[in-house]
Amino acid sequence: MALIVHKYGGTSMGSTERIRNVAKRVAKWSRAGYQMVVVPSAMSGETNRLLGLAKELSADGSSPELQRELDMIASTGEQVSVGLLAIALQAEGVEAVSYAGWQVAVTTDSSFTKARIESIDDVRVRADLAAGRVVVIAGFQGVDAQGNITTLGRGGSDTSAVAIAAAMKADECMIYTDVDGVYTTDPRIVPEARRLNTISFEEMLEMASLGSKVLQTRSVEFAGKYRVPLRVLSSFTPWDIAIELEAKSGTLISFEEDEKMEQAVVSGIAFNRDEAKVTLLGVPDKPGIAFQILGPVADANIDIDVIIQNVARDGKTDFSFTVHRNDYVRTMALLETTVGPAIQAALVLGDPRICKVSIVGIGMRSHVGVASKMFRALSEEGINIQMISTSEIKTSVVLDEKYMELAVRALHKAFDLEQA
Amino acid sequence: MALIVHKYGGTSMGSTERIRNVAKRVAKWSRAGYQMVVVPSAMSGETNRLLGLAKELSADGSSPELQRELDMIASTGEQVSVGLLAIALQAEGVEAVSYAGWQVAVTTDSSFTKARIESIDDVRVRADLAAGRVVVIAGFQGVDAQGNITTLGRGGSDTSAVAIAAAMKADECMIYTDVDGVYTTDPRIVPEARRLNTISFEEMLEMASLGSKVLQTRSVEFAGKYRVPLRVLSSFTPWDIAIELEAKSGTLISFEEDEKMEQAVVSGIAFNRDEAKVTLLGVPDKPGIAFQILGPVADANIDIDVIIQNVARDGKTDFSFTVHRNDYVRTMALLETTVGPAIQAALVLGDPRICKVSIVGIGMRSHVGVASKMFRALSEEGINIQMISTSEIKTSVVLDEKYMELAVRALHKAFDLEQA
Repeated sequence: MALIVHKYGGTSMGSTERIRNVAKRVAKWSRAGYQMVVVPSAMSGETNRLLGLAKELSADGSSPELQRELDMIASTGEQVSVGLLAIALQAEGVEAVSYAGWQVAVTTDSSFTKARIESIDDVRVRADLAAGRVVVIAGFQGVDAQGNITTLGRGGSDTSAVAIAAAMKADECMIYTDVDGVYTTDPRIVPEARRLNTISFEEMLEMASLGSKVLQTRSVEFAGKYRVPLRVLSSFTPWDIAIELEAKSGTLISFEEDEKMEQAVVSGIAFNRDEAKVTLLGVPDKPGIAFQILGPVADANIDIDVIIQNVARDGKTDFSFTVHRNDYVRTMALLETTVGPAIQAALVLGDPRICKVSIVGIGMRSHVGVASKMFRALSEEGINIQMISTSEIKTSVVLDEKYMELAVRALHKAFDLEQA
Repeated sequence: MALIVHKYGGTSMGSTERIRNVAKRVAKWSRAGYQMVVVPSAMSGETNRLLGLAKELSADGSSPELQRELDMIASTGEQVSVGLLAIALQAEGVEAVSYAGWQVAVTTDSSFTKARIESIDDVRVRADLAAGRVVVIAGFQGVDAQGNITTLGRGGSDTSAVAIAAAMKADECMIYTDVDGVYTTDPRIVPEARRLNTISFEEMLEMASLGSKVLQTRSVEFAGKYRVPLRVLSSFTPWDIAIELEAKSGTLISFEEDEKMEQAVVSGIAFNRDEAKVTLLGVPDKPGIAFQILGPVADANIDIDVIIQNVARDGKTDFSFTVHRNDYVRTMALLETTVGPAIQAALVLGDPRICKVSIVGIGMRSHVGVASKMFRALSEEGINIQMISTSEIKTSVVLDEKYMELAVRALHKAFDLEQA
């Protein structure tokens, strides 16, 4: 019997009426003979409400003790969701049982507010499935080895769903969300953006990590690592559409590359303005300097994205990187007070008002001239490029944030993405 | 070093501003050298909000599966509270850590929504106290042997606090609430009602079980069983009053009877309109009949309070008892469809519009005529008594609910309770 994992986002769980719809959809799959595991997010707005209360009470700081309590609080949003969904399923006549992360157990490390899943015990869940129950598991959360509640960070419910699908060796993990699939770019910026029926795992990984909000990056990484077939689809289609139709809707994140090779060179345009740029000018050009700069940043639990080191001149080089905008102030303080003086940098500069725009496509591997086409399109719009970063399947540029929409529209057009 | 347990009710935790006040009060005790364990309730209104969501989704019924999910949902209210209070304590510069019931662990049986505490593991809490931390434990909840979250039923946070105080052998359990102690009766009904400085454990048990809302009955039972000194006091006194004053405020539930014996015969008037009356008329008067009636009721998990069996006449007797008003419909259905026919009762009658009024006092043990004084006072007001139930330290009457306030006022005056 096929085992399917459904994941429902906060919007899909946003009211009791919507939860009832989720229950009807899941019940339909269950009655059709599928073994069902469901991973819902907290009701939309709930996590913000809870963390808002916490913020009113907390002094400044980000001690592990504070972060532990934030996880204690935030994790309740999903716990409420699983209970409500289980009740709604029972009301549909389907046997259902809910579990918090610690009950499964979903074991994580102890990095409160951004924990990573280490293992998932499938014994309890398998026993329920074998007994004919739908199992509803709280996303976004886990438990560390000391029995503390942890959360996986924003969007972590996607990761939970995929990790659970991997642990259970599910036949497919279906991510129900408020969009009906993965688009060539955000339709709010480019109305001509087109939904992709399939996208390769690697492209999806780039799209997600580059700012496409459809799926959380780590969930895609998990799906790739464990080869979990992943589908993104809309929770706003009527719950009672035929399963055969529903099973083919949305966008499938595929592991089969062959068919993709014939498709367009560039699959999509990703972008975000979540990052900030910092630069150390006049850094001595000697072995180990990158580690001396980035080691302390990593130790402070600050994620780094684009890294650029220019060619040295007169024994000095310039070193730039981007961090999440939320980490900008912390990063600047770290560089100005500690790292900069330690490596005798001439100057520390920062700019939080940037954006990153990227073209993504497996086809780029075998096509020359894709990057230059990108640069020409931006140049024709008079957009200055601040940083460039490339990989086999994407080319990213960092721009002044005011150009973001303009750049995305220009690139979408330049690569003919409105045409299938 | 003295170990004190503080319990704060939902009103005391009703907003971040109030939680901050709780934190300041606890911090004061901690800085004064006391080892502190704090058991807060959910923020006021939160449990109702959560169960309201559940009710919107649930079909009728009260299956264990449904009740398990209700506990999953309701328990989050206290989990949020402990996290918020720990954060507020940290902001006051006090080391603090929060635990859900399962993390302690507070082990209960599996009676979802009305579980009973079986054991409390004090190892983790003691280690924290030894390390100088304030420990904040979620009230109202526990975990059963299978790892399911349970709740203790409404008001269960009092029971949690007392049980934790017992397990930790605390020097005192201080119940902070929205009233400043135990009164001779409810001041909203009798303005002359007087606060008692001390009340015996047995009297308090009667007052609680008879409807005085200050403390949950089971918490008083626990306190009695483990001889936990218990104090009820107001959380609305300024947090910075001197500890010596605060430690003597409110009402102490005392285990020393001697001093009480010199006090008034009757200590207080308790009342409630939470009950409903059911009567089986024309029941064959034979051995085992009470069990045949009440066995199925108990099996249906319906608590029974007053039981009256009249003297038999012509081999037939009438059998009345009271249940919680919430269980009235279920009880009537059970009697009409199953129990009544099985024992060949002539008629099943029911009345949910009753109240129970009781006089309570250890002094009654050694004073004759207390009950008759009660009946006379009611008679002078023209109040008809429907049922009477007595014990060594209380006399209860069941009345038409419309007489409740009148009866309480008449009895308060008849026993001179306005005078110390």
